[in-house]
Amino acid sequence: MARDTEKRRAELRERLIDIAEAQIQEHGSASLRARALAEEAGCAVGAIYNVFTDMPGLQLAVNGRTFARLGARVTDAVAERADAPPVERLILMAKGYLAFAVENPKLWRALFEVEMTSDSEVPEWYMRDLSQLFAIIAGPLSELDPNATEDEIELRTRALFSSVHGIVLLGLERRISGVPIPRMESMIDYLLRSFASGN
Amino acid sequence: MARDTEKRRAELRERLIDIAEAQIQEHGSASLRARALAEEAGCAVGAIYNVFTDMPGLQLAVNGRTFARLGARVTDAVAERADAPPVERLILMAKGYLAFAVENPKLWRALFEVEMTSDSEVPEWYMRDLSQLFAIIAGPLSELDPNATEDEIELRTRALFSSVHGIVLLGLERRISGVPIPRMESMIDYLLRSFASGN
Repeated sequence: MARDTEKRRAELRERLIDIAEAQIQEHGSASLRARALAEEAGCAVGAIYNVFTDMPGLQLAVNGRTFARLGARVTDAVAERADAPPVERLILMAKGYLAFAVENPKLWRALFEVEMTSDSEVPEWYMRDLSQLFAIIAGPLSELDPNATEDEIELRTRALFSSVHGIVLLGLERRISGVPIPRMESMIDYLLRSFASGN
Repeated sequence: MARDTEKRRAELRERLIDIAEAQIQEHGSASLRARALAEEAGCAVGAIYNVFTDMPGLQLAVNGRTFARLGARVTDAVAERADAPPVERLILMAKGYLAFAVENPKLWRALFEVEMTSDSEVPEWYMRDLSQLFAIIAGPLSELDPNATEDEIELRTRALFSSVHGIVLLGLERRISGVPIPRMESMIDYLLRSFASGN
């Protein structure tokens, strides 16, 4: 009996994440409404709060999926070039990141909007997903400079991730500072090559 | 008579910008409300739309001021080190940018939120302010590589601005990927030095 309840709870949880994901993909995370979600899921509004602490909690669950897909995309981008020089792999990863953002603009944006929408603590698993994404970048960086300390690699990983993120973010804001995608790819090329070898 | 009308119109415009600026500084651009602004300015709501096409138009006017202050801050950051090597000047500018963002988080954020809040065209003067900010960065970049074409410098300027912006943006999102300010300064140091000389 308790197991059935658990099962139904897990099913509702998945269904709500599916619906919220589709909603964010189309209209962005600011458009999430408990009432509309409950209606589409065929449950009471209160039932949502039995499986998620609050709406930001649901958004975090969607972001968890997005992180997994983003990580896969970045990993796939280098899968067939595992033997390429570190810089080339960093560029392939960065372009995979760009491609994911271009294909999933609203889901990608939602990854960085939690801070603004939630006052609750960011859960352990979320930070772990984030650091797993960073770990993919840290590999080639360590190869570039085998003598760097763990702390140096962590700082460089953050700096490069943030840099590529900035290029993608401002590049996608078409109406103000936006640039064509090939131009963004040139910026990424330029940044990572000059970073690795001086200019 | 017509001149008096013009004068009153200009005064109301300035007053509205002052009020909106204070509002954004404290509560962010999403909190701007025509009714509340009109009340504080002692004018009818309709009067706002006699001086600005819409609320995003008013936000753009506030951003125009913020751009000017940001540009001054970045210029001041190198004023006394005009003879320093290009890389050092780029680092000083980037740290000036970081300092401005830390001191004016909501006004700084509002500079990049127009795209999301307005469907109207971005005015000529706004793009000019943006390119003036870029021009400050382009100088040292040209010195670093006198043979670079204008297009190359423009691309590098955008890439570096976006990179530093990304470090500042993610760095300031304390609850998710945030880092202490000295750590952000180290990332900026690292990025710009390795960019200029390889690592």
